[in-house]
Amino acid sequence: MIKVSIIGATGYAGEELTRLLLRHPEVELANLGSKSYAGKQFSKVYPGFFQILDKKLSEPDLEKFSRESDVVFLALPHGIASKEVTESILEKTKIIDLGADFRIDNLKTYENWYKTEHFGQKVLEEAVYGLVELNREKIKKARLVANPGCYTTASIMALAPLVKEGIIDLDSIIIDAASGVTGAGRSTKLDNSFCEVDEDFKAYGLTNHRHTPEIEQELSKIGKTDIKLNFTPHLIPMQRGILATCYGNLKKGLSEEEGLNLFESFYKDEPFVRIRKNNFPQTKFVKGSNYIDIGLKIDSRTNRIIVLSAIDNLIKGAAGQAVQNMNVLFGLKETLGLELIPDCPI
Amino acid sequence: MIKVSIIGATGYAGEELTRLLLRHPEVELANLGSKSYAGKQFSKVYPGFFQILDKKLSEPDLEKFSRESDVVFLALPHGIASKEVTESILEKTKIIDLGADFRIDNLKTYENWYKTEHFGQKVLEEAVYGLVELNREKIKKARLVANPGCYTTASIMALAPLVKEGIIDLDSIIIDAASGVTGAGRSTKLDNSFCEVDEDFKAYGLTNHRHTPEIEQELSKIGKTDIKLNFTPHLIPMQRGILATCYGNLKKGLSEEEGLNLFESFYKDEPFVRIRKNNFPQTKFVKGSNYIDIGLKIDSRTNRIIVLSAIDNLIKGAAGQAVQNMNVLFGLKETLGLELIPDCPI
Amino acid sequence: MIKVSIIGATGYAGEELTRLLLRHPEVELANLGSKSYAGKQFSKVYPGFFQILDKKLSEPDLEKFSRESDVVFLALPHGIASKEVTESILEKTKIIDLGADFRIDNLKTYENWYKTEHFGQKVLEEAVYGLVELNREKIKKARLVANPGCYTTASIMALAPLVKEGIIDLDSIIIDAASGVTGAGRSTKLDNSFCEVDEDFKAYGLTNHRHTPEIEQELSKIGKTDIKLNFTPHLIPMQRGILATCYGNLKKGLSEEEGLNLFESFYKDEPFVRIRKNNFPQTKFVKGSNYIDIGLKIDSRTNRIIVLSAIDNLIKGAAGQAVQNMNVLFGLKETLGLELIPDCPI
Amino acid sequence: MIKVSIIGATGYAGEELTRLLLRHPEVELANLGSKSYAGKQFSKVYPGFFQILDKKLSEPDLEKFSRESDVVFLALPHGIASKEVTESILEKTKIIDLGADFRIDNLKTYENWYKTEHFGQKVLEEAVYGLVELNREKIKKARLVANPGCYTTASIMALAPLVKEGIIDLDSIIIDAASGVTGAGRSTKLDNSFCEVDEDFKAYGLTNHRHTPEIEQELSKIGKTDIKLNFTPHLIPMQRGILATCYGNLKKGLSEEEGLNLFESFYKDEPFVRIRKNNFPQTKFVKGSNYIDIGLKIDSRTNRIIVLSAIDNLIKGAAGQAVQNMNVLFGLKETLGLELIPDCPI
Repeated sequence: MIKVSIIGATGYAGEELTRLLLRHPEVELANLGSKSYAGKQFSKVYPGFFQILDKKLSEPDLEKFSRESDVVFLALPHGIASKEVTESILEKTKIIDLGADFRIDNLKTYENWYKTEHFGQKVLEEAVYGLVELNREKIKKARLVANPGCYTTASIMALAPLVKEGIIDLDSIIIDAASGVTGAGRSTKLDNSFCEVDEDFKAYGLTNHRHTPEIEQELSKIGKTDIKLNFTPHLIPMQRGILATCYGNLKKGLSEEEGLNLFESFYKDEPFVRIRKNNFPQTKFVKGSNYIDIGLKIDSRTNRIIVLSAIDNLIKGAAGQAVQNMNVLFGLKETLGLELIPDCPI
Repeated sequence: MIKVSIIGATGYAGEELTRLLLRHPEVELANLGSKSYAGKQFSKVYPGFFQILDKKLSEPDLEKFSRESDVVFLALPHGIASKEVTESILEKTKIIDLGADFRIDNLKTYENWYKTEHFGQKVLEEAVYGLVELNREKIKKARLVANPGCYTTASIMALAPLVKEGIIDLDSIIIDAASGVTGAGRSTKLDNSFCEVDEDFKAYGLTNHRHTPEIEQELSKIGKTDIKLNFTPHLIPMQRGILATCYGNLKKGLSEEEGLNLFESFYKDEPFVRIRKNNFPQTKFVKGSNYIDIGLKIDSRTNRIIVLSAIDNLIKGAAGQAVQNMNVLFGLKETLGLELIPDCPI
Repeated sequence: MIKVSIIGATGYAGEELTRLLLRHPEVELANLGSKSYAGKQFSKVYPGFFQILDKKLSEPDLEKFSRESDVVFLALPHGIASKEVTESILEKTKIIDLGADFRIDNLKTYENWYKTEHFGQKVLEEAVYGLVELNREKIKKARLVANPGCYTTASIMALAPLVKEGIIDLDSIIIDAASGVTGAGRSTKLDNSFCEVDEDFKAYGLTNHRHTPEIEQELSKIGKTDIKLNFTPHLIPMQRGILATCYGNLKKGLSEEEGLNLFESFYKDEPFVRIRKNNFPQTKFVKGSNYIDIGLKIDSRTNRIIVLSAIDNLIKGAAGQAVQNMNVLFGLKETLGLELIPDCPI
Repeated sequence: MIKVSIIGATGYAGEELTRLLLRHPEVELANLGSKSYAGKQFSKVYPGFFQILDKKLSEPDLEKFSRESDVVFLALPHGIASKEVTESILEKTKIIDLGADFRIDNLKTYENWYKTEHFGQKVLEEAVYGLVELNREKIKKARLVANPGCYTTASIMALAPLVKEGIIDLDSIIIDAASGVTGAGRSTKLDNSFCEVDEDFKAYGLTNHRHTPEIEQELSKIGKTDIKLNFTPHLIPMQRGILATCYGNLKKGLSEEEGLNLFESFYKDEPFVRIRKNNFPQTKFVKGSNYIDIGLKIDSRTNRIIVLSAIDNLIKGAAGQAVQNMNVLFGLKETLGLELIPDCPI
């Protein structure tokens, strides 16, 4: 059994992670840390867990957790992990960080977009970007995995094959995406209150959303050139799910069949990637699961390709992907604890 | 492995049943029957199952299914099962009927409330009402289990201890309940379209909802007298979940603590019943699980007790309870395949 | 033109009031007071009002407002108005208080249920309970109108004719009601955040909701005896609307036709009351309007009557009723500024 | 008073039109035609109108209606109006068609995208595209006004100033839009049922939505060149509202201030256009009103402009715009009957 601790267990991603780990056949939950709720039972914070997980939450203590765990998951606001994850910690435990601190290779880029100092250049250098489908081999040997952002997972995976194969003009990428409200975290902001969100649709973070440099970085690596793109997120009046609608100008003719074949071959044998041929991705087809669904359409009139991808932002976009990373780190079957069937109806 | 078939696999209850059985460690899916979609892949009807269950749906054929299965689940509109389930069928297979045809002991009562003929007096006589918490021993030996209705499960379980112990005036029972829209089935009626349901709340079936005689029958058995009561369902603009708010006049003084103790002792060791002491049941605390949560409050000003119960109508109120019945029928651990943690956030 | 000021203009009831008054042909908006947003434009707080009402919000100053206004509306948390509304204020202006401070005649009852001191016995004595359909003549002469609560409006109006005519057993009244989330005010509480409310249904305030004594008081006056009843509110995952499902034991036989005739005659010529004969009230049929819809059903099996009433909690349950009171106070046509057609679809 | 009839009064756009016209001070409702509900009272179909509009619906009869009305509104599925609107009809009455039949100038383009025959070349030639802000003078003299589509209104108005001034590369236009479910009409399709739509987000009509040629046609006229673009609609789990997120590559440098000034000057004195400077358009800021809100952002990193526009699809996108057209046609004040304040909370 793998001993696992979580810091930040009571945010939505932390809660989802706890749920998944609790049913994972190879996991033993060691410590659940929560700054806001230390001392309270987990089931007091999430009453759905009554009689399932009445364990007490403890003060987050990475030093202690790292001694008592084979792996510690961090689900924290940005700016904390870069301080706390040190060489000394990594000598004791593996870290899977669901936050942003170790996702951006370039410390200056991080500081520009996140408007905060980064404290861990050296640790940052060894962090592996935990998009398993692209980095599986590196993850196997990592001590520190930077679990990707939700929008970034959907966006990078929708565009990677096209960028890799040089099919689209790399200056032409536009990602228009939308997310359910859990993406904003468990928050008491007025903007996230029911009456403000319900029956409304809005864009936010125009041209400056922090997932932009993360998408650009990973696609730039694949495309072996510096890519700049537009990423526009929107807020959907629902809880879970991200749909990314991605546009690119075709550099050469491509039929839909060829496009789909390209994606199928790129993601061959990936257990969590489904290429949809007869219908397009919708968020509900992946909700409650670790799948990413991808579909595409060619517009011969405008010579563009549109790729759609859908994920559950809390699972493939956060907790599920983190468990997938853990499975890879520890040499377990990658789908262990993640054999989830999408909910429909929810 | 138990060979299982379903007739009516593509309604919401049928789909949920298919989901649960697909992950059940002791089950092998034999036939999935669907009148509307025979010949189509299950994953064409529910695209969330793409690459998970691409098996073809077949014409419902109870005769054939009964030969090829250890148990057949029926998830059909009322009036069909009473024709098709015969002695000859029951000689070949066990039946768990999610519909209403075998729930009402008295054939005339059934015909009065359902406004349709019942064809199977003899088979009806041997049917066991499948509320496991009340009828476990009988179910073990049954060939035909009548899986309870959704509202009825929530209502009977909320009131059974009070009726059994003679704590409330049996003439005073009022059940005011509300359900998510999946309770209406997978329907193309205008009344169930998004723009008609969303941001609305309404009562329906006032004084004549068909779950009324079912609740009355079971409580009358427990109370050993003929009980008549009011049951008023409402429609909530959400997908899943039932909350029943039940009122009764106290015949004798009762403290909240005594009330809670009574419920705890009545449902002692029941794996799917949770008595809530510090907070009241809410539908989201059980959503996605087979739990029924129960809480209560005494009003000393009016001398009434209010009992609240919450279930997921598609799970404890339909498919989950059906699997629970199957586990009991086949001597399996009752929670097998049902170790579901409520979703929150959904 | 009537000069009108509002204190508490930026809560949901205040906003709705502002909207109604802005289109009222006999009203001139003098001051809009808001403690939280003083100095900001109204349209910054509610961007829907951009270029419609860019007027600045001011510090709430009842003394000043009372000098500059023919009427001041208060939309404040309880406990403030009882301090601020004094004889001196009432000499300068009329007050319509949307809060609770002047609704409960008995100061001790108020203090028991609201757990706060009341500071204005004398002013309280002259306050008129502003349910126009029951108190029109008194309101005409009032200086201080206590605008009824939302649940109370729906409940009292559903039961008044039955209580008046002695048709139901006054010990048997149960009101099971549900409200949209605007009823909780414009709030940053976690409990009101989108992901906590959406796809959930719960009861709250069991046996101790503060609208209970208000309903009991008004029905007691009508029934000329001390009435105690149960009132159970629920939260619906939608924004606006209240449905009250009211139960009473019939003291004598009553047909549905007789019941409907009774209600029609009781509310004869009332412009905002609609007795529904062929379908039952639903919240969406009144949403966006000042109507209260009432319907009923007799259950001859249990000898009970069920009365349903529906209102828009922000209009007939708050701002609309306040404008109706203003119209009565100033001798205007009662429907002025309130000729609103329910939204459907919303 | 203008005598007005409607054909198709019971769809969502027809209902909204009826609501607006009922409160319009210069309108008298002559005939309300509905194929599905002829003979029934309007308030039976929309019970919110009980005691407000109990008038009976009649068989749609354009010949009769045209004799009895100054203007007839058509709210019909495509393919009907092109048959029924003839020279003889236009000699008797003015027509405002909310459907698509007279929006596309080129009959072949219409037939290609709509996959149906068009029967009225001659009448088509005189039809005026009823986007008042762009075509006011022509509309004044029209007999037949083609009321624009919902997505097209939002899209054209968001892009017109940029196209007119040659600011963006006309090959680079991408419109990524999303609509509430009323956009799909009052429909009994399974796809529009509550449990299928709620908590889901999807794209549809990729590269082939019928509003595409309409947007291209109008922008091509403004740009004086043949424009091809991508338009991708999405479905939002809410009732009303469209948000269009429009992308274009800048041909020359442009600051946000210059961009906003351009829009302000282009739409100077337009009563229903609001250029938002300090916050971005959201659907709820226009819901229930005839406004279109427009905002923009420049991305200097990618040299693109993003323009956001929001409308209520049933009002500015359908019924409200139709009334605006009527006001222009009959020389009334353009805002008459349309002084609607956006709902918030809804």
